[in-house]
Amino acid sequence: MAAIKYWLIKKDSRTKARLGILETPHGAIETPVFMPVGTQATVKAMTPEELKEIGATIILSNTYHLYLRPGHKIIEKAGGLHKFMNWDRAILTDSGGFQVFSLSSLRKITEDGVEFRSHIDGSRHFFTPEKVIEIQNALGADIIMSFDECAPYPADYEYVKKSIEFTIKWAERGKKAHRYTEKQALFGIVQGGTYEDLRRECTQRLVDMDFPGYSIGGLSVGEPKNVMYDMVDLTTENLPEDKPRYLMGVGSPDDLIEGVIRGVDMFDCVLPTRIARNGTVFTSKGKLIVRDAPYAEDFFPLDEECDCYTCKNYSRAYIRHLFKAGEILAARLATLHNLYFLIKLMERIREAIKQDRLLEFKKEFFEKYYGNKEDY
Amino acid sequence: MAAIKYWLIKKDSRTKARLGILETPHGAIETPVFMPVGTQATVKAMTPEELKEIGATIILSNTYHLYLRPGHKIIEKAGGLHKFMNWDRAILTDSGGFQVFSLSSLRKITEDGVEFRSHIDGSRHFFTPEKVIEIQNALGADIIMSFDECAPYPADYEYVKKSIEFTIKWAERGKKAHRYTEKQALFGIVQGGTYEDLRRECTQRLVDMDFPGYSIGGLSVGEPKNVMYDMVDLTTENLPEDKPRYLMGVGSPDDLIEGVIRGVDMFDCVLPTRIARNGTVFTSKGKLIVRDAPYAEDFFPLDEECDCYTCKNYSRAYIRHLFKAGEILAARLATLHNLYFLIKLMERIREAIKQDRLLEFKKEFFEKYYGNKEDY
Ligand SMILES: [Zn+2]
Ligand SMILES: [Zn+2]
Repeated sequence: MAAIKYWLIKKDSRTKARLGILETPHGAIETPVFMPVGTQATVKAMTPEELKEIGATIILSNTYHLYLRPGHKIIEKAGGLHKFMNWDRAILTDSGGFQVFSLSSLRKITEDGVEFRSHIDGSRHFFTPEKVIEIQNALGADIIMSFDECAPYPADYEYVKKSIEFTIKWAERGKKAHRYTEKQALFGIVQGGTYEDLRRECTQRLVDMDFPGYSIGGLSVGEPKNVMYDMVDLTTENLPEDKPRYLMGVGSPDDLIEGVIRGVDMFDCVLPTRIARNGTVFTSKGKLIVRDAPYAEDFFPLDEECDCYTCKNYSRAYIRHLFKAGEILAARLATLHNLYFLIKLMERIREAIKQDRLLEFKKEFFEKYYGNKEDY
Repeated sequence: MAAIKYWLIKKDSRTKARLGILETPHGAIETPVFMPVGTQATVKAMTPEELKEIGATIILSNTYHLYLRPGHKIIEKAGGLHKFMNWDRAILTDSGGFQVFSLSSLRKITEDGVEFRSHIDGSRHFFTPEKVIEIQNALGADIIMSFDECAPYPADYEYVKKSIEFTIKWAERGKKAHRYTEKQALFGIVQGGTYEDLRRECTQRLVDMDFPGYSIGGLSVGEPKNVMYDMVDLTTENLPEDKPRYLMGVGSPDDLIEGVIRGVDMFDCVLPTRIARNGTVFTSKGKLIVRDAPYAEDFFPLDEECDCYTCKNYSRAYIRHLFKAGEILAARLATLHNLYFLIKLMERIREAIKQDRLLEFKKEFFEKYYGNKEDY
């Protein structure tokens, strides 16, 4: 039996948006879905119970980080990542590819894999496609990723062409190495930079391998928004309808809506938690920097339309005070609100697809979110 | 009507320990009680709901800190400290005396008050006994403190003699300045360093002023433990039975038990929250530094006898990982456990007084807590 099952419930009549259910060994997930990021086996500042309360059904954790610290073998001994971190809903682990290329130093890429140095202590490591699967098998996430080479932006055609060859071969090797196909679904990752033919080719060759789901990687790495949207569009065009599609590392309100419209089912991004810790929050009327002086005597909630724990109980003035005073509760309250905002946004998107009014929803949302500004 | 009422329920037959109920405008408190410290209008890393779940009935907040940031007037505009920080149980605010003498710089003490510079921005301020009451009236805590001069240790006799004169005069002036006697109970603070006659004199003269409760200040500032215990002993000896006694800034497990035995009803201390953030936790078998390497693969809870949220759901290995990775959840889980440990300890102390077996409880607790060690 396969580890996951994807049920396509409804297609939007005017866009490529899809409503679905993704069944995993740790619960069913309504898609499109936003996955909070728990890089180091914790979604920063949150408990698992709080994540459940705000409606998170799946979180992402990072293979590269957990491999380096505490080490996948310790997590395996603990009974797997779910037990280690006290999270009994679904988990997706990434391939480590993006981190190896962006965080570590002295990386050396060969056909066999990547040699790199840890960003923590400079120690030397080697990731092969098999090793990355071995680590993810030990972690035990419900959905795992093939090792991939994430090309930078910009990158020339020959470089990207070579990187998709690596990515495709590594996907094949990872598929063979994967031991727990009944408990963990292995996704192939589509690379190809911003070259249409390479994207198409990579998509096609991965689809031929028949993965239980597909990730769209190598985007949101510096390319213009419209280029990213085009790449998403042509990738989903070539993906099978009966498999989930995951757009990696993307999660601004704009990108979530635009991604859904282009047929994406799953998203993750550190943005909501990262900006929260710096004192910036999403609101229905756009971003708000609650640290700023104008909020010192503002006794309204972060977002008057929000009914999260933070907004029901605390004022901007209090949260600003917490940030100025460097208090942990500041990060907690802002993080909870931002994640709730995106999870709620996905709920509203799903509802809009159900009612066949996604484009109307998009218009209403952006009119309010950006007000009279035209910067989107 | 008075703001608080103290009911003496039972006296231990072999010690000076007392079981009581302290009624406040924000709920009844079983004493002896430990008060978690929320210096900057938040108990570090905790939400009010979590504090309630672990059984906190009263917390302490700091006048000096709140005056400097965000400012007492902002908190007054917010509707008072309870509303500002979303805490509907009792609050006690300190006098600012201890902080003015230990945190700020360039302090200049005169009979009228203290001039000092903020530890945040170096700005110049002046605290008079009236000003300190005005600030605390604005904050709106259930129990507030007279301005006092906390002498350092060691300090010569003449210095301490002068400091109790200031403290007594400031107590008189504060009492006159206090506006909300029906909503906020003003305690006098006993100073006197480690000089028995000065402690006695200060106690007697404050008792003559008839405060609704008394604080024992100027201890746990570097003097030997036995000297502190003696000072507590002779102070409570001279305090009226029908008023609560609060030993300021004291809260190790040893000091809580020894303080109760000497007739103290209320305690506060930053110790449990501070050491928690550094990775040290209380357990029934003594302190444990969970950051340390031996716990890397230790899948037991922090304390096997503890039934707090942390111990029910997380292993030492996971919490160690969180500390090594610098995650906020580390501080949350350790803080929650340490506060629960002390609050639970006070519950057990109250139960022991009820059963007239406090000395037996003390013996059992310390035997387990210190094992074969003899360092208490
Ligand atoms: Zn909110
Ligand atoms: Zn515990």
